[in-house]
Amino acid sequence: MELLNVHQVNEVKNTIKKEFQPIKREIEVPIMDAVGLVLAEDIFSNEDVPGFNRSTVDGYAVKASNTYGSSESLPSFFNIIGTVEMGKEAAQEVNEGEAIYVPTGGMLPKGADAVVMVEDVEEVGDLLNVFEQVAPMENVIVRGEDVKEHETILRRGHRLRPQDLGGLAAIGITKVLVFDKIKVGLMSTGDEIVPPDTLALLPGQVRDINGVSINAAVQALGAEVIYGGIVKDEYDAYLKKSKELFEQVDFLILSGGSSMGTKDYTSQVMNELGDPGVLVHGISIKPGKPTILANCNGKPVMGLPGHPVSAYVLFDLFGRLIMHRLHGAEENIFFKQLKVKISRNVPSQVGRSDYIRVVLEIRDDELWAIPVFGKSGLITNLVKADGMVEIPQFKEGVVEGELVNVTLFS
Amino acid sequence: MELLNVHQVNEVKNTIKKEFQPIKREIEVPIMDAVGLVLAEDIFSNEDVPGFNRSTVDGYAVKASNTYGSSESLPSFFNIIGTVEMGKEAAQEVNEGEAIYVPTGGMLPKGADAVVMVEDVEEVGDLLNVFEQVAPMENVIVRGEDVKEHETILRRGHRLRPQDLGGLAAIGITKVLVFDKIKVGLMSTGDEIVPPDTLALLPGQVRDINGVSINAAVQALGAEVIYGGIVKDEYDAYLKKSKELFEQVDFLILSGGSSMGTKDYTSQVMNELGDPGVLVHGISIKPGKPTILANCNGKPVMGLPGHPVSAYVLFDLFGRLIMHRLHGAEENIFFKQLKVKISRNVPSQVGRSDYIRVVLEIRDDELWAIPVFGKSGLITNLVKADGMVEIPQFKEGVVEGELVNVTLFS
Repeated sequence: MELLNVHQVNEVKNTIKKEFQPIKREIEVPIMDAVGLVLAEDIFSNEDVPGFNRSTVDGYAVKASNTYGSSESLPSFFNIIGTVEMGKEAAQEVNEGEAIYVPTGGMLPKGADAVVMVEDVEEVGDLLNVFEQVAPMENVIVRGEDVKEHETILRRGHRLRPQDLGGLAAIGITKVLVFDKIKVGLMSTGDEIVPPDTLALLPGQVRDINGVSINAAVQALGAEVIYGGIVKDEYDAYLKKSKELFEQVDFLILSGGSSMGTKDYTSQVMNELGDPGVLVHGISIKPGKPTILANCNGKPVMGLPGHPVSAYVLFDLFGRLIMHRLHGAEENIFFKQLKVKISRNVPSQVGRSDYIRVVLEIRDDELWAIPVFGKSGLITNLVKADGMVEIPQFKEGVVEGELVNVTLFS
Repeated sequence: MELLNVHQVNEVKNTIKKEFQPIKREIEVPIMDAVGLVLAEDIFSNEDVPGFNRSTVDGYAVKASNTYGSSESLPSFFNIIGTVEMGKEAAQEVNEGEAIYVPTGGMLPKGADAVVMVEDVEEVGDLLNVFEQVAPMENVIVRGEDVKEHETILRRGHRLRPQDLGGLAAIGITKVLVFDKIKVGLMSTGDEIVPPDTLALLPGQVRDINGVSINAAVQALGAEVIYGGIVKDEYDAYLKKSKELFEQVDFLILSGGSSMGTKDYTSQVMNELGDPGVLVHGISIKPGKPTILANCNGKPVMGLPGHPVSAYVLFDLFGRLIMHRLHGAEENIFFKQLKVKISRNVPSQVGRSDYIRVVLEIRDDELWAIPVFGKSGLITNLVKADGMVEIPQFKEGVVEGELVNVTLFS
């Protein structure tokens, strides 16, 4: 039996950042296919946005100085000399005492430097009474106010959101260079594991939960899964299947087989797959202590415990981080983190990070985290939970009413 | 010009919940295709999970009472009579003074009621010294402890997450009844709007930002988009195109054309599409006041302002809610909400809900929301922002250091 060399959570996170690099495959995709993907280039604008001074309201383009002093009781007067058509250049010029109607988004005519809102005027035939004064550039977006020519609007490493695609559309960019989707290999090991569609279980058998939940979690993060199925706890078959899968993927996840039992071949298999091999065997964490992490010729290989809750928590903590790293994504520290009060005392061992599944509940207009207790093998705990609370290694637990960090499950 | 009948934000949300019902199309899908979809049935188990008493550790199955009083200095003694194979029924029975090796996840043999961890024993040939006492059922998950036969594990209306699929796999359910993806129609109106791939803009023209950002946001929520393109601000063409699109979708979004200008045909078009027609014209909100919401023969139709930031904020607030409603999803109140301090005073008008774009930043180990100021037409504000802060209608603004709710952008 190999001895565990137990690591702290933050140590493992730093190891991941240090050991693994973004994948080299960069591809060009149309922006409509790019949501959730990570930019592999800086994006700068070739033009000013907007390309012209634009009205932000429905109103009359005027010289601002002509409105100074105007009020409800003392309006200023203008001659209406025309209308700006949407999407067209304003043909006429505004001179002293003149006004041109301009709709929201329309181009400001030459000579005008502000727009008076329709709510603040009265039209009398071709004459206009203005009841409010406007400042220069009031109700106007100036050329280049949104984006200036040559300005960088997004940087390499940024994960593209719907509104970012809107920003790209605004500057006429309809294709971008992104990091390709990573490929993740997943296989389950264990003589007791049978496919989920097995109708009647024999005594001692359980269905392959991780092959479904980890699979779906990987896909939800925008990666492609190559599922290697279930292999028996037999060294040669395990090694052969792992090697086959390893060659096809950017990241290999082996589920089960990482307890300290006599059938533990996972770390041996990892050391066969490439150098330097196993980096971490055992993490000071509950649940999930027997987790293994290896670097096999630059590719991450992770051994998750067979217990579905441990496996899911560990994947959420480390597998997700590895995927972000390979995808070239900047870390988003705000993602899915809430600070809420915990509903009861939870003891914890100093030196170990504990992850407690919680349900969130509103009590007296405040959010509370209610721990879902139960053994780490119970998948229903995970189904009930909204997220998990970390009790850091240096703490002896948390007390009722204490503010804790909840990481929401997606 | 139609007069705006301005509604409060919560009023509009309640209108949405009251007026629109989940779509009737329920389909059966394999669980691996079901992540993000909403259950259209209650899920209950046909069996106990686990189906047998299971060890949670590598250790020795014994009668707990035989270990009572055991300690480092005073071990108890057992005869090792065999080993449980993973995935197989435990063949032998444990009698007084006997122990059988059982790996993590293995079946507890008949006669045993607890497992002693390998860390707490010493093996001497076929003899076992036990240095810790165990209580009945210690280190054991009892048959049915995770899920009991006939127990309901998930309910209609639940949006399926990766771990929920794991729960389904555990009980052998590999297909589920879900609400079908909804179809959302989207078109942009405005004489100034040109396709995003237009290289050189003419004066007065802008690219179709909403056709990209709202499109991507709708898809990210798991719906199919039917994009109707850009139509000119011409009533007959607008009505014809809207009718065509309306017939094909569950929810129609019309972008632009909802300012108070003379070219505002949107509410007229909506009233033509079905009854009762326009429900809300104008929301007491900044940005986004001219938003229109209609119920056309039970289908929601939404008119978003052309300004890309207003449009995105409004879609995030109401469009998303409409989609959840149509998808049959329970509301998730915790989704994407953070309570953080705001970095400066922001005034607001009482009677109007203000939505301020913010960047999140860590200062002295605390999260702060830093407002991104700028006119509502600036798409780059949205690109810079991590989320938005609501200043509710009854507040006169917020002061520096005040705790505010941030809704994170996805």
